[in-house]
Amino acid sequence: MVFANAGSLGAAPGRRDELVTHLTRHSPRLEQAGCLLYEVGVDDDDPDTVYVVELWTSAEAHRASLQLPEVQASIAEARPLLSGTFGGFRFEVVGSPLRTEA
Amino acid sequence: MVFANAGSLGAAPGRRDELVTHLTRHSPRLEQAGCLLYEVGVDDDDPDTVYVVELWTSAEAHRASLQLPEVQASIAEARPLLSGTFGGFRFEVVGSPLRTEA
Repeated sequence: MVFANAGSLGAAPGRRDELVTHLTRHSPRLEQAGCLLYEVGVDDDDPDTVYVVELWTSAEAHRASLQLPEVQASIAEARPLLSGTFGGFRFEVVGSPLRTEA
Repeated sequence: MVFANAGSLGAAPGRRDELVTHLTRHSPRLEQAGCLLYEVGVDDDDPDTVYVVELWTSAEAHRASLQLPEVQASIAEARPLLSGTFGGFRFEVVGSPLRTEA
């Protein structure tokens, strides 16, 4: 079952754009790990936050991706760019109005 | 610029699954209006909430879609299924680690 993660990541003061650059660095390994979609963005009304929406082939694929050495290294590198505030939600996809099947 | 909406919708007691059915009803008009992705789902840890992630060609396309007669009718029909609690965030997409270009 496709798994979705929608998250907000607080950026350390003045480091939002570095965090965006970090999160959008081309990472073909994610696709191999089951990542179907990973969009990163900003909202200028909230200039210290970066947003992501992700779709994965399964919750398990997402969980396993967090253990990949590349992903662990990336998380460590991102740490100084983060304020420590996180938000969002996760869910199992059950359908779409754009498709006739689930 | 691609626009993203990630939302949580509280369901009226016992009506989550009806709300899911409503939100996943095939609506080709959304695609014509600029909807690129619209995934609907649930999280059994929070059984009175339905989640959506949407991508649109632009914030303007999303805004305009809310005025379509079909969408207005759909919102009116959904009203009794909703608790009135909404959450989530919106952002402008600036890139993806799955692509080499923005």
